[in-house]
Amino acid sequence: MAVNHKIWIRNTQILTMTGAPLFAGDILIENDKIAVLGQVSEEQAAGAEIIDGRNTIAMPGLVNTHTHAAMTLLRSYADDMELMPWLNDKIWPAEAKFVNEYIYWGSALAAVEMIQSGTTTFADMYDSMHEVARVTEESGLRANLSRGCVVFSDPELKNIQKNVRLHENFNNAADGRIKVWFAPHAPYTCPPAYVEKIVEAAKSCNAGIHVHLAETLDEQRQIAEGYGKTPTEYLNDLGVFELPTLAAHSVYLNDNDIAILKEHNVGIAHNPSSNLKLASGIANIPKYLRAGLNVGIGTDGCSSNNTLNMFKEMTICSFVQKVNAMDPTVLPADSILQLATIGGAKVLRWDDEIGTLEAGKKADLILVDLNKPHFAPWNNSVSDLVYSAQGSDVKTTIVNGNVLMKNYEVLTMDVEKIMVETARIARNVL
Amino acid sequence: MAVNHKIWIRNTQILTMTGAPLFAGDILIENDKIAVLGQVSEEQAAGAEIIDGRNTIAMPGLVNTHTHAAMTLLRSYADDMELMPWLNDKIWPAEAKFVNEYIYWGSALAAVEMIQSGTTTFADMYDSMHEVARVTEESGLRANLSRGCVVFSDPELKNIQKNVRLHENFNNAADGRIKVWFAPHAPYTCPPAYVEKIVEAAKSCNAGIHVHLAETLDEQRQIAEGYGKTPTEYLNDLGVFELPTLAAHSVYLNDNDIAILKEHNVGIAHNPSSNLKLASGIANIPKYLRAGLNVGIGTDGCSSNNTLNMFKEMTICSFVQKVNAMDPTVLPADSILQLATIGGAKVLRWDDEIGTLEAGKKADLILVDLNKPHFAPWNNSVSDLVYSAQGSDVKTTIVNGNVLMKNYEVLTMDVEKIMVETARIARNVL
Repeated sequence: MAVNHKIWIRNTQILTMTGAPLFAGDILIENDKIAVLGQVSEEQAAGAEIIDGRNTIAMPGLVNTHTHAAMTLLRSYADDMELMPWLNDKIWPAEAKFVNEYIYWGSALAAVEMIQSGTTTFADMYDSMHEVARVTEESGLRANLSRGCVVFSDPELKNIQKNVRLHENFNNAADGRIKVWFAPHAPYTCPPAYVEKIVEAAKSCNAGIHVHLAETLDEQRQIAEGYGKTPTEYLNDLGVFELPTLAAHSVYLNDNDIAILKEHNVGIAHNPSSNLKLASGIANIPKYLRAGLNVGIGTDGCSSNNTLNMFKEMTICSFVQKVNAMDPTVLPADSILQLATIGGAKVLRWDDEIGTLEAGKKADLILVDLNKPHFAPWNNSVSDLVYSAQGSDVKTTIVNGNVLMKNYEVLTMDVEKIMVETARIARNVL
Repeated sequence: MAVNHKIWIRNTQILTMTGAPLFAGDILIENDKIAVLGQVSEEQAAGAEIIDGRNTIAMPGLVNTHTHAAMTLLRSYADDMELMPWLNDKIWPAEAKFVNEYIYWGSALAAVEMIQSGTTTFADMYDSMHEVARVTEESGLRANLSRGCVVFSDPELKNIQKNVRLHENFNNAADGRIKVWFAPHAPYTCPPAYVEKIVEAAKSCNAGIHVHLAETLDEQRQIAEGYGKTPTEYLNDLGVFELPTLAAHSVYLNDNDIAILKEHNVGIAHNPSSNLKLASGIANIPKYLRAGLNVGIGTDGCSSNNTLNMFKEMTICSFVQKVNAMDPTVLPADSILQLATIGGAKVLRWDDEIGTLEAGKKADLILVDLNKPHFAPWNNSVSDLVYSAQGSDVKTTIVNGNVLMKNYEVLTMDVEKIMVETARIARNVL
């Protein structure tokens, strides 16, 4: 492939997330890949677009392993409520009114927010996923997309067929930035026969599975009463884990559940804010990591967070795990950064291409602006990224070698228009 | 007093925190006070400096009820450690090298960070407090200052005398922006005779008390072993609570402790991030509020947080209390905003002047910039402030009628110089 597009990031601090310490250097991007990390010669960089990396850290873009992007439309619409009234009286009636256009604009708002706060890859489960695919194409982000399937709204299995068509139309689309998986929504919304249909469809597409798992005590109770199993056993017995699987939440796992997930290399999307805000519980992440599970971090949708800010998730993940263990040494800053980058990439089975900065990998990276008072006096940059950084400190976002945001300016999306359109939709629908 | 200084904030959304709903209007400030909220006539506003309030919420400045400002110097210096090695091997040896100049620059950095993230009043306990007073004067912030007193570094009671001199020199200084209280550091660092000396000095100055209380299980154990009491009983028996008292942390309070604090109207500075990051525990804030205690929010110092960002504290406070109660309805967004504004003002016994926006009160207020994608589509501004806002969304900060930051530009401090000086100090000392 001829090199026709180069970016030369000069004089930055590079955090590869491969285990190497932070080091000063340059980055050369050629087309969609990282070509050089460290010393870049004028000759190598001939013809490159130059980005001034002074006073920044270059690190892998953050991987948001679980969200429902279009739910930005419901941001701050229904907070501080019990789960079932929240769903029955607010979220589901609102979502029932969502047409394709709404999903498009809501997801576009999500894309802007993710680009601005340093997320380069997201795993999304929702309806009208072709609209989310369109947003992914346009925004330049990388995404794992799946059509959330719930039996009570799918008597004729049309939604499963929509996921099959989504796979046909968009898997490996957008220069490989889109992967399509399948999404049985959750054990409590998908009875056995329905799960089996989805697994069958996913197998026929050679695709993976994105599912909510063991999110609440109520789910535990329901599945125990209905099937005499844990939610993990339930999905396992239906063959779900024979496919590459991303299990969101996974708050309630017993030792046998953990062993099952480990055996099948199931990845976990840990959603700290959502689990706290909805009072779901606290997942024992250090225990999962000790057991060898792959764990990433997710924001969940905006109605249970209320942002898509992975820097916030990192801080909260760290703090809550420390108090949960009553041990301030658990999940030190470097471990948290791993969860949010390479950990998430492994959960999405995408670590061959993203999650670390390495020559030959895709150029998915962000520049974090260190020239802020809340980072001074810069005693430890890894700590600063986890404990002090705000999403708004991300200065530049690059995915697949394309610059999506440069010096705080989003280049791929019309930010003002997106804000206006989502406000219009919210006024009309909510 | 002749009116010689007016500010007219036009076309903002006003959140008074008096219980009134958000409403559109103007604010007229005359000298140090709020003169008008709502409709302001051209005549009333004659000669005023105009601030464009479009796309902002005007709300009371945030009250940080517990910090150690100069510890910004130790930001990210020693994270993810056990408490005693953290103190013994890192924090105390570093602090032992701090000279007055360092305290000045560290506190100046804190002032910048607070101004930028919407804090207008802070309660500070540290050494060399005349330097913190100087920073308070220069920055324009409002502060409750106290000299932290620990018996092992004060054999001749000189530090108590320093607090007396601080009171003489700075109480009600800076146009009334500074109040000086006294600070027996904590039950476990202040034996009875030492506490009594401090109480005596505070009484002679007619000042209040700022103390760490019931922060850890280890403190509970130590005080139980040494005195057969809870830390709260220990301070109560020494007469501390006869003075206006601000008790930081207060993680471990039994019913009798709560009754004691209520009887004496002791205010609590709740420090969510610090209590989580150091794995101290989770204070039962809903219980304290039900018992009628005054509660504010604090950041603690930067080595246990690592920022002074009260918006972060609000989010984390809410989330953690919900999961701790396993009830998503506890401490709804409006309650959290109350803790961070009028609640903190009551804790500092300053609610006659600050904590709400009301005509006649001091003009301590912030403008939060709503024109950001992570607030769209603006379904509920109170929720947006607690769950979506970043400290970096604060656009303008006003204290005592003076504009400290306007359109993101800090006006009272040399931000670049402060960052350079703190970096120099950190390189030299750490």
